[in-house]
Amino acid sequence: MTTVVEATELVLGTARTYGEEYVIMEDSVGRVLAEAIVATRDMPPFNRVAMDGIAIDYAAYAAGQRHFEIEKRIAAGDPIGTLSDRHKAVEIMTGAALPTGANTVIPYEALTIEGNIAHIVADRVVQGQNVHTQGEDLQQGATVLDAGHLLRPADLALLATEGKTRVRVRRPPSFAILSTGDELVPIDQEPLPHQIRRSNVYAVQALLRQYHVQSTLLHLADDPEVMHNQLSALMGKVDAWICIGGVSKGKKDFLPQVLEALGVRKYFHRVAQRPGKPFWFGATDEIVVFALPGNPVSSIVGTVRYVLPWVRSCLGLSWDYSMPVQLAEPFRFDPPLVRFVESELQHDSSGVCRATPRPGHGSGDFTRLAFTKGFVELPAEKTLFQPGEVYPFWPFPTFVV
Amino acid sequence: MTTVVEATELVLGTARTYGEEYVIMEDSVGRVLAEAIVATRDMPPFNRVAMDGIAIDYAAYAAGQRHFEIEKRIAAGDPIGTLSDRHKAVEIMTGAALPTGANTVIPYEALTIEGNIAHIVADRVVQGQNVHTQGEDLQQGATVLDAGHLLRPADLALLATEGKTRVRVRRPPSFAILSTGDELVPIDQEPLPHQIRRSNVYAVQALLRQYHVQSTLLHLADDPEVMHNQLSALMGKVDAWICIGGVSKGKKDFLPQVLEALGVRKYFHRVAQRPGKPFWFGATDEIVVFALPGNPVSSIVGTVRYVLPWVRSCLGLSWDYSMPVQLAEPFRFDPPLVRFVESELQHDSSGVCRATPRPGHGSGDFTRLAFTKGFVELPAEKTLFQPGEVYPFWPFPTFVV
Repeated sequence: MTTVVEATELVLGTARTYGEEYVIMEDSVGRVLAEAIVATRDMPPFNRVAMDGIAIDYAAYAAGQRHFEIEKRIAAGDPIGTLSDRHKAVEIMTGAALPTGANTVIPYEALTIEGNIAHIVADRVVQGQNVHTQGEDLQQGATVLDAGHLLRPADLALLATEGKTRVRVRRPPSFAILSTGDELVPIDQEPLPHQIRRSNVYAVQALLRQYHVQSTLLHLADDPEVMHNQLSALMGKVDAWICIGGVSKGKKDFLPQVLEALGVRKYFHRVAQRPGKPFWFGATDEIVVFALPGNPVSSIVGTVRYVLPWVRSCLGLSWDYSMPVQLAEPFRFDPPLVRFVESELQHDSSGVCRATPRPGHGSGDFTRLAFTKGFVELPAEKTLFQPGEVYPFWPFPTFVV
Repeated sequence: MTTVVEATELVLGTARTYGEEYVIMEDSVGRVLAEAIVATRDMPPFNRVAMDGIAIDYAAYAAGQRHFEIEKRIAAGDPIGTLSDRHKAVEIMTGAALPTGANTVIPYEALTIEGNIAHIVADRVVQGQNVHTQGEDLQQGATVLDAGHLLRPADLALLATEGKTRVRVRRPPSFAILSTGDELVPIDQEPLPHQIRRSNVYAVQALLRQYHVQSTLLHLADDPEVMHNQLSALMGKVDAWICIGGVSKGKKDFLPQVLEALGVRKYFHRVAQRPGKPFWFGATDEIVVFALPGNPVSSIVGTVRYVLPWVRSCLGLSWDYSMPVQLAEPFRFDPPLVRFVESELQHDSSGVCRATPRPGHGSGDFTRLAFTKGFVELPAEKTLFQPGEVYPFWPFPTFVV
């Protein structure tokens, strides 16, 4: 049986780029930059006044002068002015450009102003204070954001500053999500007693959407010939498939043979893990195929543990988005398999992340997923896992804290 | 000056509900349920076979029988069948309904099958094994998801199972995001040497969007009369305003007086914090107004620390989404103000979350925001903060791990 480490390597070995596209800047959160953003101006672009007050030449202050006549007023948005007399002052506002000849800003809090005369009452004035110096944060030509950067909300301020109304980003691979199983009916249909509605595909689609992956849903017939025709028609239409179900040892589990008949080269079938052991993975030059077992927890865990790392790798992000957490409770698991356990996650008052296993009633029980934040990955070599031991936690990706 | 605790209480005191709306299930991630989702059927809805193999009556096995004639085959999607002879077996597939009369499933791995006879080779068979019992996960009438639940990707599988093609969710308040400052030009315009492009508003809008908040952007003129007319025309159009800039002590900072002239009742002006001290907050019966100082870091921190907690509170979520983290490096801050410091966040190998302060060059320096994941909140009472001490960390909300 393929190990989790081997399966991960084989999956990631098929990752490649899928081109680039432009998006509107406002829609770019969660996208990966395909271009480096370079500063076209210094940041700040001028000596920017950081407090409301007066701008003076520090030399006058250093020579003992405390009363300054205000020779003019400059507001934010006014062209860069000049302090014409170095013994006078310019009354000035936050965001304005410091006038030529001035180098220090005294805030109103440190002044009394009578008529046109400002009197400095502060104990201490430092040369250059309250001036955000041109180029202090970043110099013209420097990189603001690297290509490969995953855009987050605050980054949009930087894109806007550089006038990037649209942004070149990496295109994620497109997917078809393919359900199997004659017991499944569409969600708008009332199931008969032996039927259930299709459900996993929506969770898998939503997980992919967190990375702006486009996907289409399709249901495959439990008939090898019909399935062959359906999949054949899909060739060349999307970059990757996630098949859900039909990969175990059952009489109707002919998905692997259909995939191989279509020329999809098998990389592995069955991984030493629970849930998700019957996982089949293959590829052609054109498509990559993740065939996950059909139990809800198996298909969701398989997406989080293999498909999303592959998507991240295609986008040039680090594939491993797990984080080390401490186990909050003991857990026992005997079979020599890697065990993925759905877990709650708490940040305790000492700053430690603790995962509490909530395994539910097996891989068919997805009611617990609503109360868990992801899963811990417990190694195959151990059977008894103790509180305080540290293991990787794979969060279900979503913005929610 | 208002303390951070007082300001938080005053802001949250104005939170209220803003109605409900329907969304397509596929678009419901990140929305808050306005309805409880109740199980219309047991989960699973029938005794669901969890492995491929044969279904038998355990009593026959217990009585010593090891060879079972296969009387029929049942696949997933077939109507619920019957084991007519309790000394025989039904060959059965994962996902199928267990036939009446059978209670235990022996997987293929534990069998040899010759012709129509299955021979059990397993050492141990447990009554009821590999059957996912009807109602084991959740019983009909039980709550699947509570009203007030924030929907995450895996929850969509539960909504789909219940046939919720559309979902009733809480409507977040709508916002206008209002920039001020004559030095600002639109992002598609080339700024003059003393000008900069509008940028903060895009970051603030993207932060709100993480909670599906709709917002419109508008620039206010640095003229009290024009501003008054612009704001007056906006009354009744949206639920809340975020004004950015124009709230300090400068000659052009007449936003507070304009707001008060419009009948917006001031709750506070100036909070004992850095950045963001000049924060003004007020409300009428119709709108809530957050007037944040205009420096990029101030407006982003103000949004994360006050606006988003208010939005969460309006949606019925816990307002405090900070998490306790350990400081990774010492930090000194003398003024008696709460200090919000942009920080990197690492999960170290012992499961501890550590924040490394990256304060940059003051609240005008937003280049560091791209490299930080949020900010730590350091109390006003201390000046020296030591590694290992635990403080709240406010993440910039985004799905990214």
